[in-house]
Amino acid sequence: MTEHHSAHMRHALQLAARGLGRVWPNPAVGCVLVQGGRIVGRGWTQPGGRPHAERMALDQAGTLARGAAAYVTLEPCAHFGQTPPCAGALIEAGVSQVFYALGDPDPRVSGRGHAMLVKAGVRVEAGLCAEDARVMNAGFLKRVLHGLPMVTLKLATTLDGRIATGTGESRWITGADARRAVHALRMTHDAVMVGSGTALADDPDLTVRDLGAGHQPLRVLVDGALRHAPDSRLGRTARDSPVWVLHGPGAQAAAWQATGARLFEVPRLDAGLDLRAGLAALAAAGVTRVLCEGGAGLAAALLRAGLVDDVVMFTAGAMIGADGVAALGPLGLVALADAPRLALVSNARVGADVMTHWRFARAD
Amino acid sequence: MTEHHSAHMRHALQLAARGLGRVWPNPAVGCVLVQGGRIVGRGWTQPGGRPHAERMALDQAGTLARGAAAYVTLEPCAHFGQTPPCAGALIEAGVSQVFYALGDPDPRVSGRGHAMLVKAGVRVEAGLCAEDARVMNAGFLKRVLHGLPMVTLKLATTLDGRIATGTGESRWITGADARRAVHALRMTHDAVMVGSGTALADDPDLTVRDLGAGHQPLRVLVDGALRHAPDSRLGRTARDSPVWVLHGPGAQAAAWQATGARLFEVPRLDAGLDLRAGLAALAAAGVTRVLCEGGAGLAAALLRAGLVDDVVMFTAGAMIGADGVAALGPLGLVALADAPRLALVSNARVGADVMTHWRFARAD
Repeated sequence: MTEHHSAHMRHALQLAARGLGRVWPNPAVGCVLVQGGRIVGRGWTQPGGRPHAERMALDQAGTLARGAAAYVTLEPCAHFGQTPPCAGALIEAGVSQVFYALGDPDPRVSGRGHAMLVKAGVRVEAGLCAEDARVMNAGFLKRVLHGLPMVTLKLATTLDGRIATGTGESRWITGADARRAVHALRMTHDAVMVGSGTALADDPDLTVRDLGAGHQPLRVLVDGALRHAPDSRLGRTARDSPVWVLHGPGAQAAAWQATGARLFEVPRLDAGLDLRAGLAALAAAGVTRVLCEGGAGLAAALLRAGLVDDVVMFTAGAMIGADGVAALGPLGLVALADAPRLALVSNARVGADVMTHWRFARAD
Repeated sequence: MTEHHSAHMRHALQLAARGLGRVWPNPAVGCVLVQGGRIVGRGWTQPGGRPHAERMALDQAGTLARGAAAYVTLEPCAHFGQTPPCAGALIEAGVSQVFYALGDPDPRVSGRGHAMLVKAGVRVEAGLCAEDARVMNAGFLKRVLHGLPMVTLKLATTLDGRIATGTGESRWITGADARRAVHALRMTHDAVMVGSGTALADDPDLTVRDLGAGHQPLRVLVDGALRHAPDSRLGRTARDSPVWVLHGPGAQAAAWQATGARLFEVPRLDAGLDLRAGLAALAAAGVTRVLCEGGAGLAAALLRAGLVDDVVMFTAGAMIGADGVAALGPLGLVALADAPRLALVSNARVGADVMTHWRFARAD
């Protein structure tokens, strides 16, 4: 029976995943309605964050929702925001039972949806597939609980950890399949972020290509002194799709402002920007999931500050040698025991390359 | 029917694999005898290279070999060496059919076993699972055809390609399971090789531990100026298990000679030793499979000289940063197109780490 319930919740989690990268600042939620063993409604948070998953599933089920069991990946909301509360909608539709994976992380509202359902006579069970739901909502949870977005660091290197030759040549180290996987990764993040070194070297546009994407992630440039040119690809396309720029105090911002980019002034810290403050500014603006695509300096600074959650690594069967450019700048470790340590989530062949996904232990 | 034959040949290849690392200078061969669909004999080249696989399988089958089909991973030998020819033994036992995967690579004798069998009225078919047999015999083939051993380069690094912190701390980057996999890898090679830098830093003994090993690979030290101390672990244990040392002209060899190690003087080339000459000396002494375990300088020199066949990479979920020690020294590439490129053979989780196996395209 529990296995049966788990299967429905995993189904709801798969639906939830469709929203990743496009529902911020809301969480990506999935909902499945089951009536007499038959699925009568499926929903997931829609682009922009509304309608909610429960609303979509209830609309699909219509009168079949009466007496149905609902499987929802996050505790149904209980407050009137821009939509009426989902707990109320489930009650009104006559749902008899609600399984949800994870409580609302906001301590001020946590448990209210649960209580509203119980009070209305609905049987409620929390915690089904909770760990999977936690992973799915990592960005939303981190934003609500810590005021920061989750950060995925992408690295694409040779077997010896290099991203370019000594002369800066980097196209292409990984193959077409790996590059397509990077674009898919971009689509599941709210924002794609690069440092000024990478921007200057590659003049990237950081868009999602070749995947029929109807949605582009935010593009974030971290550029303390605004060294990257406003007439770069990022600057020229800032009116087509948002570009946000984190810069330091005293940088000449007018030309970048004129591109249509949104600028954030961030305090300086040590040799660079205060990245924690920078990411907090992104979170305050609603961002929950950031994909950092380098370069070596920004990646190292994020790791030093403990701001990275996941690392997705693409490894090509090539060697460049110590005279090449390292994927990661200096970390200034005193002892090996201080080295950041990550657990393996998955590994897979992607075309001619290998993709491995690693995760830091959760702090909260 | 072919599938049936392939299954028997794959079985023979699995038996052959048991000999890897312990049959040099002979090839690791496997043999399966099938009589009326029943396996009546199984053999593989025994430690030291004798008896041969066919002899062992025939002895096991006894009179059941009469009319049987033999599946052999390499063309049966036709010459009297230290053992009578296997082709003759198969004929004498009354085997009616012989499938072999790969012809004898030595052009002077290639085809003789085949001809002897055909002449005696045995049906012979060559080429079954030939590619697998080629991989299995890579070391033997390279020694016979090119006068060099095959070289597997082992790398064990962090996600950013580092093997130690800036202060040289390297124990442990990978976990216990990966280290055990390295010991298993050592067992399938005739020799384990390190450069002087690694020897000086780690004072390794390079033995196989914890695997119930009744066999130790040769230990090879590449040390142009004989900087490594004769009273190191390698020197002190040279009488228990062979240690071979490749050194340059003019090095003070007496103390090392006194340890019982076997010394090879190798010409100098550029900044180091002529590694092609060094490996040729090992091959001339019978070595077919060498596992190079570093360090960065020796690995880069082998790659620069095109002497590496396979790379086995262990990747730990850790970061050290650019101030750490790189796994690979400079390669001096002019363009990215000149970077050594390898194809992925396999990838697998090994404990907390990832093991990937890569291979250069075969030149012959």
